[in-house]
Amino acid sequence: MSRWAIGIDLGGTAIKAAIVGEKSGIVTHRTVPTDTASGSTGIVVQLAGIIADLYHVASETLDLSDCAGIGLGAPGAVNADTGTLSYPPNLPGWSVVPLRDNLQQCLMQQKGLAIPVFIDNDANAAALGEALYGAGREFRDFFMVTLGTGVGGGIILNRKLYRGANGTAGEVGFMIIDFEGSSVHTGIRGTLESLIGKKGIVALARRMIDASPSGSSVARFCGDDYTKLSPRFLEHAAKEGDEVSLAVWNRVASILGVGLANVVTLMDIRKFVIGGGISAAGDIIFVPALDQLRRSTLPSMHDGLELVPALLGNKAGMYGAAALCFG
Amino acid sequence: MSRWAIGIDLGGTAIKAAIVGEKSGIVTHRTVPTDTASGSTGIVVQLAGIIADLYHVASETLDLSDCAGIGLGAPGAVNADTGTLSYPPNLPGWSVVPLRDNLQQCLMQQKGLAIPVFIDNDANAAALGEALYGAGREFRDFFMVTLGTGVGGGIILNRKLYRGANGTAGEVGFMIIDFEGSSVHTGIRGTLESLIGKKGIVALARRMIDASPSGSSVARFCGDDYTKLSPRFLEHAAKEGDEVSLAVWNRVASILGVGLANVVTLMDIRKFVIGGGISAAGDIIFVPALDQLRRSTLPSMHDGLELVPALLGNKAGMYGAAALCFG
Repeated sequence: MSRWAIGIDLGGTAIKAAIVGEKSGIVTHRTVPTDTASGSTGIVVQLAGIIADLYHVASETLDLSDCAGIGLGAPGAVNADTGTLSYPPNLPGWSVVPLRDNLQQCLMQQKGLAIPVFIDNDANAAALGEALYGAGREFRDFFMVTLGTGVGGGIILNRKLYRGANGTAGEVGFMIIDFEGSSVHTGIRGTLESLIGKKGIVALARRMIDASPSGSSVARFCGDDYTKLSPRFLEHAAKEGDEVSLAVWNRVASILGVGLANVVTLMDIRKFVIGGGISAAGDIIFVPALDQLRRSTLPSMHDGLELVPALLGNKAGMYGAAALCFG
Repeated sequence: MSRWAIGIDLGGTAIKAAIVGEKSGIVTHRTVPTDTASGSTGIVVQLAGIIADLYHVASETLDLSDCAGIGLGAPGAVNADTGTLSYPPNLPGWSVVPLRDNLQQCLMQQKGLAIPVFIDNDANAAALGEALYGAGREFRDFFMVTLGTGVGGGIILNRKLYRGANGTAGEVGFMIIDFEGSSVHTGIRGTLESLIGKKGIVALARRMIDASPSGSSVARFCGDDYTKLSPRFLEHAAKEGDEVSLAVWNRVASILGVGLANVVTLMDIRKFVIGGGISAAGDIIFVPALDQLRRSTLPSMHDGLELVPALLGNKAGMYGAAALCFG
């Protein structure tokens, strides 16, 4: 027996879906733009179509009786037990949707497919993906941080997802490290995401560029238009040696290190897998973040501290979603 | 069979020790000043003496074959697996001591007692005490916070202690919520303990009293000597309606609420048991702390949030230490 599943990463921009063999990894995958305009009903239909297509592809080379299910990673608060998705930030107009049951029903009624659906939030799915197929394979316990538009987190304890009693554990983006600070995110002051989410990084860079007498070579990457400033441009400029951009990343890394210190202090987790687009800055972030992490924790907590880059890139969500079915 | 154990709370000032019945609770207990001057060797001898004495008392009414062991809660970093205590802050001159083995050996050699010893840190022991005998009995998962000279924490998940891979989990006093703030504790900036440990509260009160044009009636409790200012005096003044003292507690509660919010966000734990001398201020702390906790977390995390006072007072350590033997 060689189990396989369909793993789907439902994002606000794109749906990524793959056939994943439990042992062999991704067999084939596709990416389609999310039909956000059609609301939750339309997206369920869209998902069912992609699944039916992949299921058909799978039928040509795989044993359908080995299919472990459909795994779905979704943005927002997911209750893995009840299968509901609540207020996904990047899917406008959704409130609380019984996404798992709706999708199972749609697959049955429109495609004649009776396949179990498993659902979790995207950060948890990414953590599970790295745990089973990526950078977390060697760690029994680790914390996965996704640095992107937002700052997400997923917790692996004893090689399993730690979801907490209500499924909301790991929301490191909402951890408060500057409770009297000026940055605010969804009404909460001084959260990690308000400081080093994409918007926070850009705002920080603007302030640091404005304060720099000699300016920054990042201007060239933006075509001298700072409204186009992005983490990617700051990464390029830093890698060219631009001092202001390097200082920005140093500061971002330092703030990240403080946030991770709280994970170490509270949960005694000492391994961190860092993914998401912004982690592409690499050692420019990793080295100072680990330095700060050590400065912000007790010496008795330093043994075994490690920050490693995620290995699965934008495939972690598909891998992890499929892994939800193999549990 | 009715199991019992000897539970010992080793503090920098006093050793509290009790015979605890698994079902019946504390049978008898005693408190003796800690002989800190004699170092770790002397304290092991002192502990062995207290244990032999209680064991003798137990032999008169209990079945010695029902003794589950000696449980010991100790201040500082304890490795429950290896039985070592590292750098206890309130026991001068200790470095890394194999406390469990030393005590077992001393009991054997000096008292002829072959009894297994279980050891954990005092905050963990207090959490376990409340879990099995106190305010945590109705909670499957909860976080115990001890507000005293320091700010300690212990985590109960699924009615068991969550110690983390290295036994250092739950150190909420070192959680950073003001990473650029001016308060520093053991080299780390903006920790919860630096802000609302005993020293932090007194420093805050001094600043708030100095800034108050009309002064504070807490002066009367201190005999007009603010170097004698203490949380206890601030509690008395607040309960009499002193506005500055009330504002101090409001601020302390607010900072506590922010710290607890990070526990909710990260671990999805929503029940808090609050103990320690400073928690005696009661609703003056509890009500605004819960308010702040709600303001500092996402609405999707508000279901079931609860702050309750610890029930076992200064007996939690003895209860929890005994409970280490019943696991």
